[in-house]
Amino acid sequence: MSKQELVVLGQDEGAGACCPGLLTAPLDEDQAVELAKVFKALGDPVRLRLLSMIASRAGGEICVCDLTPAFDLSQPTISHHLKLLRQAGLIDCERRGTWVYYWLVPEMTDRLASILTRPAGEPLPDRTVPAGAAS
Amino acid sequence: MSKQELVVLGQDEGAGACCPGLLTAPLDEDQAVELAKVFKALGDPVRLRLLSMIASRAGGEICVCDLTPAFDLSQPTISHHLKLLRQAGLIDCERRGTWVYYWLVPEMTDRLASILTRPAGEPLPDRTVPAGAAS
Repeated sequence: MSKQELVVLGQDEGAGACCPGLLTAPLDEDQAVELAKVFKALGDPVRLRLLSMIASRAGGEICVCDLTPAFDLSQPTISHHLKLLRQAGLIDCERRGTWVYYWLVPEMTDRLASILTRPAGEPLPDRTVPAGAAS
Repeated sequence: MSKQELVVLGQDEGAGACCPGLLTAPLDEDQAVELAKVFKALGDPVRLRLLSMIASRAGGEICVCDLTPAFDLSQPTISHHLKLLRQAGLIDCERRGTWVYYWLVPEMTDRLASILTRPAGEPLPDRTVPAGAAS
């Protein structure tokens, strides 16, 4: 819930902000460190399922009480995974009364989609004959 | 170099194949396990830098001998990171004489971009007033 934890990858620049260029230019070390944190948060099946449940929820948000029954895991374990997603800037949350409600931060997933998208019009390489093969 | 290692996430379905729906429907466990492997491969700064160097290389491929000098790491360590990227289906390679040459598998990055892309036309939620907040 701390806003300070969410300033990762400059997500507040908005979905239209240009990508660091994963596919178009070599990343520098700082860019790679920041981006790796987000991909690492996605690199776990439970966190991916949590993210997909949060992102696909009609109305845009979901109570933690509706997330935990889907998993054979303890509430603290689920909370830990949710914390990692939140620290990566992928979700945010708010406590209301007894429960905490979670929602997707679409600017971050937009940004990841953007940096994984090849420059427009670039064709897929033909690898039936390896490039440069002398054979 | 083994083709068997590359059958992850059904990448051979091509770039236009539909996404498992990370943002549109809850992932099932099997989908989450497969997808998490790929994101985990991206969740490391050295691997992200390697991938960006490979993907952005003019001509589409790069010799391992041109990758290692960019890092303060041993050749075996670089080779290990390259192996993880290859096992995740993100890159492929071929030995020619002394050296191994690497290239991006764009179908996989296309696929990741696709599953991280929100359904067309879906607006960003207005979170200036939290949804459902009773104030």
